Amino acid sequence: MVINLRSFLKIKNKHSKISDFQDLEHLDGVAISVVNAKLYNPPRDDVVLFYFRENANFASVYTQSSIVSENIKWNREIKSKKIKALLVNTRNANAFTGKNGYLGLKEIADELSVQLSIKRKDDDEILEKIKSNEILFGCTGTIGENFPHEKIKKCIPELINKIKYNQNKYIWVKAAMGMMTTDLVPKLAMDECKIGSTNVKIYGVAKGSGMIFPNMATTLGYVFTDAKISSKILKKLLKKHIETTFNAISCDGDTSTNDMVSIFATGAAKNSIINNLNDERLFNFEKSLNNVLLNLAKRVTADGEGASKFISILVENAKNENDAKKIAFSVANSPLVKTAFAGEDPNWGRIIMAIGKSQIQINLSKLSINIGDIKVIEKGELSVDYDEILLKEFMKNEKIDVTIDLKMGSKSFTVYTMDLTKKYIEINADYRS
Amino acid sequence: MVINLRSFLKIKNKHSKISDFQDLEHLDGVAISVVNAKLYNPPRDDVVLFYFRENANFASVYTQSSIVSENIKWNREIKSKKIKALLVNTRNANAFTGKNGYLGLKEIADELSVQLSIKRKDDDEILEKIKSNEILFGCTGTIGENFPHEKIKKCIPELINKIKYNQNKYIWVKAAMGMMTTDLVPKLAMDECKIGSTNVKIYGVAKGSGMIFPNMATTLGYVFTDAKISSKILKKLLKKHIETTFNAISCDGDTSTNDMVSIFATGAAKNSIINNLNDERLFNFEKSLNNVLLNLAKRVTADGEGASKFISILVENAKNENDAKKIAFSVANSPLVKTAFAGEDPNWGRIIMAIGKSQIQINLSKLSINIGDIKVIEKGELSVDYDEILLKEFMKNEKIDVTIDLKMGSKSFTVYTMDLTKKYIEINADYRS
Repeated sequence: MVINLRSFLKIKNKHSKISDFQDLEHLDGVAISVVNAKLYNPPRDDVVLFYFRENANFASVYTQSSIVSENIKWNREIKSKKIKALLVNTRNANAFTGKNGYLGLKEIADELSVQLSIKRKDDDEILEKIKSNEILFGCTGTIGENFPHEKIKKCIPELINKIKYNQNKYIWVKAAMGMMTTDLVPKLAMDECKIGSTNVKIYGVAKGSGMIFPNMATTLGYVFTDAKISSKILKKLLKKHIETTFNAISCDGDTSTNDMVSIFATGAAKNSIINNLNDERLFNFEKSLNNVLLNLAKRVTADGEGASKFISILVENAKNENDAKKIAFSVANSPLVKTAFAGEDPNWGRIIMAIGKSQIQINLSKLSINIGDIKVIEKGELSVDYDEILLKEFMKNEKIDVTIDLKMGSKSFTVYTMDLTKKYIEINADYRS
Repeated sequence: MVINLRSFLKIKNKHSKISDFQDLEHLDGVAISVVNAKLYNPPRDDVVLFYFRENANFASVYTQSSIVSENIKWNREIKSKKIKALLVNTRNANAFTGKNGYLGLKEIADELSVQLSIKRKDDDEILEKIKSNEILFGCTGTIGENFPHEKIKKCIPELINKIKYNQNKYIWVKAAMGMMTTDLVPKLAMDECKIGSTNVKIYGVAKGSGMIFPNMATTLGYVFTDAKISSKILKKLLKKHIETTFNAISCDGDTSTNDMVSIFATGAAKNSIINNLNDERLFNFEKSLNNVLLNLAKRVTADGEGASKFISILVENAKNENDAKKIAFSVANSPLVKTAFAGEDPNWGRIIMAIGKSQIQINLSKLSINIGDIKVIEKGELSVDYDEILLKEFMKNEKIDVTIDLKMGSKSFTVYTMDLTKKYIEINADYRS
């Protein structure tokens, strides 16, 4: 299903039950341009340019996979502390494409840097030689197909031509949609806060897990702020906050070759620069950044392939965060737990199984499990108040919280996931045949 | 679906495509007795006794889960080097049943030991006080329901009464069926070999992964031999051979609270005892033992929930066995790989993804992948001979071998798994609702 801008409001309404959409407006220092490079058939928007006229500080985290796409290799080699543009294409992951995939990116970067330099002179009367290695790439789509660099190169004049320096909510939605593969909805999130007395914005777009073709590269997330923060600090902030947001979601436990989350800071808000992680002014910013990242991550989960339910697994009072995380992921990734949720089956025995499977030592006589507000297990035994009919009724909800209390310490971790439905099998087994 | 002995031959025929059945006959020193203790509704055979009149040396391996069933706790506490009986019940896993579950086992063991002592006197005119802690338990079925120890205790007289000292193929099938939960077929395997000049038999029965109720405890495997081998050596042999057999299969990556594989040696074949792992006479025995364990493990996989295909993932020429194992399991456990097989989709990009996801460092330019005899990837690139139509045709087979050649060393590992189908979701999501 490919949606267009016109039908977006309808979908927005339908999906608002799971996670409400937010409107993004103008963010100073970011220019967006979206084109149809005919990578898809039937054609749709498939190439998105984010242009930072006055540069942006930036930081990225990439997939942990030992096989990475050519654009991830390209990005990792960028040594510059400032970036000029981010170009994202969908339909083709540029993974397992060998040297040609990499050289294709180089050709595009060379051409784009030349044309952006010309635009810089035309628009701003500034002579600036924009370099190829000041351009980042995001690629998503099929693995192993030749990277269509010629088609993308051919659309650079149109991309440049469409650059506008004022953004509105429609261009952000258009950008988020231009990154989608088999996502059902675009994913956008925003927050605002103060750095000192300066108002700053944090905007984000993401694409999620849709894997209809041989293998779709899953998660792309891009966050933009007009705050003035050094790249070094951006890196630290991203690493810190990715752990409890994008690294805390799991759709099917598979890891893509192309996963990439980046943050760009244009500095247009003109706060005095933040160079130190202990800067008190970061407190609010971090809170807002976490909001935006978590919001995007949740949207990716809620739109996971075949998802009918959004499930949070909170493990609390663990000895350390790692234990909490391992147990939460063990539950979140268990096909038996996920199918039980799909079947709206109050099947707590499978949660017990998945906790045990994590191999983390727990004190069973202290274990409590709540599903929603319903006490299921207390002190290692079925709660005296437990009422299966009540839980069965609760399981019909679209949002389900599971709380696993270990009572062994003070650390906690939450993982977000979705149920495993026949639709998932349909999407992944039936599409190409 | 519960099958009866009469319909077994039909099923045997139907399933012989995946793995041929073998007939087990008499094995000296093992007596089998099967009863219906009314644990199921409608009733069926559900309690199986293996009685070792002249004792058996034995060894077991148990689930790695940190939450284990009460019978696994009971078994782990047995210090005796010799065992008198193994009692297996289905329908109830005796997991998460607390003290009562454990005390229930003790009551059964106490009663069974008294009645077995009486039988020993009646049959053999030997006064032998059989002890409770010479009895092992296997439990499989629902987690968290009260353990029905009274029902099981009540059927002990019938169990004792039915003991026959001569086994035939029907009693072995009856025993294998009496252990099943939602397995579609009983699982039996056998091999014979020589220890020195003595002929010995190795017989095995197993139950596999059927998880319709809250959570079925998955795998039970019991191997019996008339060879004379010390318990110490049995332990070493089992630990060694379990790694490439029962520990090399994966249906859905979930781990049960009740997994248990045991080997019992009656010594009735009267070879001079084997006390040393370097004993040359073990060579053939180990080969046969591995055959039986692997054969059972493959049957468990082939009958995995919803399975329509049996898939072998061989990773070869790895730097070390651990690397090979991690990559093989990463591919075998990937929902995207498994759904591609279900859809008969020549979707090699997902295999690449799953190799990368293992995070084992590989040399991409050396990587080769074959599916069946079809070369897909050679030296890190799509093979020049690759023909998608050919591969698509091959994917229709019921047995599919994937060979991943890393060309980085000399170690290899094979994992056995099955595809992920809508039927799996149906069984696990729809049954209770």
